[in-house]
Amino acid sequence: MAKSNHDLILKVSCPDSPGLVSKIANYIASYNANVVEFNQFADAVNGKFFARLEIDTSKASVPASKLEEGFAVLAESINAQWHFRQFPHKTKTSLLVTKTSHCLNDLIWRAQSGELPIEITSVIGNRHHCQQVVERAGLTFHHIDFEEQPKEEAFRQVQEILTAEEVNLVVLARFMQIMPAWLCEAYAGKMINIHHSFLPAFIGANPYRQAYNRGVKIIGSTCHYVTSDLDAGPIIEQQVSRVQHFHDVQDLTRMGRDCERAALAQGIRYHVYDRTIIDGNRAIVFAD
Amino acid sequence: MAKSNHDLILKVSCPDSPGLVSKIANYIASYNANVVEFNQFADAVNGKFFARLEIDTSKASVPASKLEEGFAVLAESINAQWHFRQFPHKTKTSLLVTKTSHCLNDLIWRAQSGELPIEITSVIGNRHHCQQVVERAGLTFHHIDFEEQPKEEAFRQVQEILTAEEVNLVVLARFMQIMPAWLCEAYAGKMINIHHSFLPAFIGANPYRQAYNRGVKIIGSTCHYVTSDLDAGPIIEQQVSRVQHFHDVQDLTRMGRDCERAALAQGIRYHVYDRTIIDGNRAIVFAD
Amino acid sequence: MAKSNHDLILKVSCPDSPGLVSKIANYIASYNANVVEFNQFADAVNGKFFARLEIDTSKASVPASKLEEGFAVLAESINAQWHFRQFPHKTKTSLLVTKTSHCLNDLIWRAQSGELPIEITSVIGNRHHCQQVVERAGLTFHHIDFEEQPKEEAFRQVQEILTAEEVNLVVLARFMQIMPAWLCEAYAGKMINIHHSFLPAFIGANPYRQAYNRGVKIIGSTCHYVTSDLDAGPIIEQQVSRVQHFHDVQDLTRMGRDCERAALAQGIRYHVYDRTIIDGNRAIVFAD
Amino acid sequence: MAKSNHDLILKVSCPDSPGLVSKIANYIASYNANVVEFNQFADAVNGKFFARLEIDTSKASVPASKLEEGFAVLAESINAQWHFRQFPHKTKTSLLVTKTSHCLNDLIWRAQSGELPIEITSVIGNRHHCQQVVERAGLTFHHIDFEEQPKEEAFRQVQEILTAEEVNLVVLARFMQIMPAWLCEAYAGKMINIHHSFLPAFIGANPYRQAYNRGVKIIGSTCHYVTSDLDAGPIIEQQVSRVQHFHDVQDLTRMGRDCERAALAQGIRYHVYDRTIIDGNRAIVFAD
Repeated sequence: MAKSNHDLILKVSCPDSPGLVSKIANYIASYNANVVEFNQFADAVNGKFFARLEIDTSKASVPASKLEEGFAVLAESINAQWHFRQFPHKTKTSLLVTKTSHCLNDLIWRAQSGELPIEITSVIGNRHHCQQVVERAGLTFHHIDFEEQPKEEAFRQVQEILTAEEVNLVVLARFMQIMPAWLCEAYAGKMINIHHSFLPAFIGANPYRQAYNRGVKIIGSTCHYVTSDLDAGPIIEQQVSRVQHFHDVQDLTRMGRDCERAALAQGIRYHVYDRTIIDGNRAIVFAD
Repeated sequence: MAKSNHDLILKVSCPDSPGLVSKIANYIASYNANVVEFNQFADAVNGKFFARLEIDTSKASVPASKLEEGFAVLAESINAQWHFRQFPHKTKTSLLVTKTSHCLNDLIWRAQSGELPIEITSVIGNRHHCQQVVERAGLTFHHIDFEEQPKEEAFRQVQEILTAEEVNLVVLARFMQIMPAWLCEAYAGKMINIHHSFLPAFIGANPYRQAYNRGVKIIGSTCHYVTSDLDAGPIIEQQVSRVQHFHDVQDLTRMGRDCERAALAQGIRYHVYDRTIIDGNRAIVFAD
Repeated sequence: MAKSNHDLILKVSCPDSPGLVSKIANYIASYNANVVEFNQFADAVNGKFFARLEIDTSKASVPASKLEEGFAVLAESINAQWHFRQFPHKTKTSLLVTKTSHCLNDLIWRAQSGELPIEITSVIGNRHHCQQVVERAGLTFHHIDFEEQPKEEAFRQVQEILTAEEVNLVVLARFMQIMPAWLCEAYAGKMINIHHSFLPAFIGANPYRQAYNRGVKIIGSTCHYVTSDLDAGPIIEQQVSRVQHFHDVQDLTRMGRDCERAALAQGIRYHVYDRTIIDGNRAIVFAD
Repeated sequence: MAKSNHDLILKVSCPDSPGLVSKIANYIASYNANVVEFNQFADAVNGKFFARLEIDTSKASVPASKLEEGFAVLAESINAQWHFRQFPHKTKTSLLVTKTSHCLNDLIWRAQSGELPIEITSVIGNRHHCQQVVERAGLTFHHIDFEEQPKEEAFRQVQEILTAEEVNLVVLARFMQIMPAWLCEAYAGKMINIHHSFLPAFIGANPYRQAYNRGVKIIGSTCHYVTSDLDAGPIIEQQVSRVQHFHDVQDLTRMGRDCERAALAQGIRYHVYDRTIIDGNRAIVFAD
């Protein structure tokens, strides 16, 4: 977790070669900033380098924004993708929902209590079921109709809201519509879904019924980045729960809700603290 | 667990109707035997009744064998499948192995220490890798050749051993051969496998590689009854382990071993204490 | 879980003797009610019998209320403590809180969504921190002052509210005041607390700091019945979470919140579905 | 895990100051060695710096032994405690046991299969119960008498064996004798115990009975470094298992065995891969 004394987070990925830790650490040290946490991993299989740093700039010789500026030169020389995030910071986030509100209620609490550094700009629903929960929390609820108009049109209205609110993170908090490829691409790496099964088991509809029919002894839920390939995006976090023969589909659904909201909240947490780096269809997650 | 004072276990399944608990309990009570644990479940979806009783017969008016005999009449009248098991009892068990010995070593320890009430009659291997582990433990190792002769012939040799040793339980403790349908049927409900994935995810070969490629955050293993439908038999027990991006396929394999032996030992335990009732492709498990 | 077809739950405890399952099951069967789940356990150490039944009375020859009435005679003859609960039923519940709202928000959601069959009659706080959460949910918030008046007087005001609202369950949802013995006794077996440690480790104040100082690798929380002996009441449910060296006290506090609300919700669930029987300083919990 | 391409591990602890990551990384880079994993943590509370590196020296300009030699100068300048470990390496380990062999059997398998990089030099027992398990595995068993001679004398005999066998790690694998302070000090940071409770709960004798009496819903086990303060040494790893009211002390003991061996094996793994740094009465564990 970014603490009061870790005001800057840097994540970097690039082709691996000797001396990269040294180069990055030298850069930080040259401005007298202090590395509080440094986690790095070199993937020998693919020859890639991944790192995440928490940095205390309170005694640095330049402001954090300058540190970021100067890093571009180094980054280019090592062919890196990189991101600085300065805290305190709240990620502008829109939640998309349908009927069930368990994830929604949980995320609103975590956002409003300050536990999760997100600002919920609004909640978008294709049904009205969640409206009361949203409005009672003092938030804006947008209803978008997905039945009386073409879905494509509905999704354009969603996009308009996301654009207008300058959203940096879209969370599908049990949103029961399949996102079109163009919207997935527009928010690539910035759209997170919670799937109510232990992926890749039980892809598709009614995973709890599938799980019941198969007689599994553990159910799960999966938080992943959304790609145009349904339920196949990079996995950020999974949670599981033990079940027994006397639990019917309704029980699995109920027990699964706790898994879903835990996995989703943790996944968002990892995202907003820049603990994730997408690497093809896998996610590197510097878990805490 | 069957304790010193629970010398008899009865499991029953039949079509559900009111009064079944009463009928079964009356039968036990009429001979002054004491029910120490009674767990019953009526599956409303399929109209089935499942029960498991642990019974103390120390003060009963008839011996346990007579209790069993007399139950046949009641069982017929309620159209039940049923099984009595009197303890102390050790289930004659044969283990089938290939190269890896982690499950094997674990099961030998549990059997020889008395933790698991099984008698390992012998260990059958299609390779020689496990021979030393077996023989050091004072057990018989049968090597069956699966390469220089037709597999069908090899499986007949396996069957001969199982028959000769009057085996009641066959455990595939990481046996890397696909059992023929006729052998699955011969030991239906008496053959248990450990699959090294969280079924139904990653059916088939190299599940740890599949898991790595998919980037899952939790791996698992599945203990199930063997049917002729590969990896699709009734699940008895599953275990999971959290993994991270820096774990490669070798790491997953290593971490998975602990899941595998835990799930297999627990699954066998449930079986030999008559905690399982097969119901189609699901297993009712009165877990402890 | 009590389902639509399990409209009646019976729990019974008494001295053990042969034939008790039979007697109870006969009683239910004699009115053509169907036992859907029967879980019984005889404690050999103390010679006690504990049972819990879920009963479908839809085809019974007498209404559920009559079933309950008639059971008294049998119960007396076996010297039993017993309780019938007919569903649908919502337990009238008052929540007591101080500053933190994570359990509160969670319980309100579970109650209002119908997941947990409780009716929150009101929320009582010794501070104003939770007032907004409560009032936004459309519930009544009572502020009781614990600083400007003697605590004894404050607790009497609490009791007046509980009495006036005919509360059957009092939940200390992170209420930071020590309950007086007389109030514990007035709600014996009806008052549930969540303690923010894995009891009996870290009794008393600041358990997360204690845990940090001791360097444990797993933290936990404990849901228990309140007795006058602080943090020593019968444990209903515990939850744990893995922690690491880089987690400071604030992190443990944050991670512990998820454990706390999970353990508390599960503990309340067990209580209101009559899955708990208090046996001295232990709780028998027919867990699901 | 140290992989084939991570042949060198370095752990370092020292007072924190800006630039430490840079200094260490520069040192490694200056010899063209590649940092494969770098995990670092600065403890803001105590102003301490902890780091662990996995290094690939296959293309380095100097051999690993030289890298180690040269580090002394840098280490002195930053006032560091440090340790290099070059792989492949097997830590010479002696196991101390009494009656139960579950941890022993598990560790022997892990050592002999190569899963755990330890060489078991011998097993020392104060009883004869484990002798057969040891000798069947082809290992030496030393029986030391703790009853017919003063304990102090018995411990001196233990020490003689440890010295003669040049043991670098002493594992108390359910050794039921309290180690004298002088022996704890002689092997400070090199002696690991498994305690059969979730410390700090249930310190002392019969923890499973204590757990049963308290009615906890989760039991655990704790792997820790041994200090002269009984059960209070730095915790390396803990494992837990869920229990229910029908589990008696024998059940807890049985279920606890699986926790014990899992926690002990993991704790030893962390130690021999230099993932642990002792910091007062806490252990920094770079867990994997």
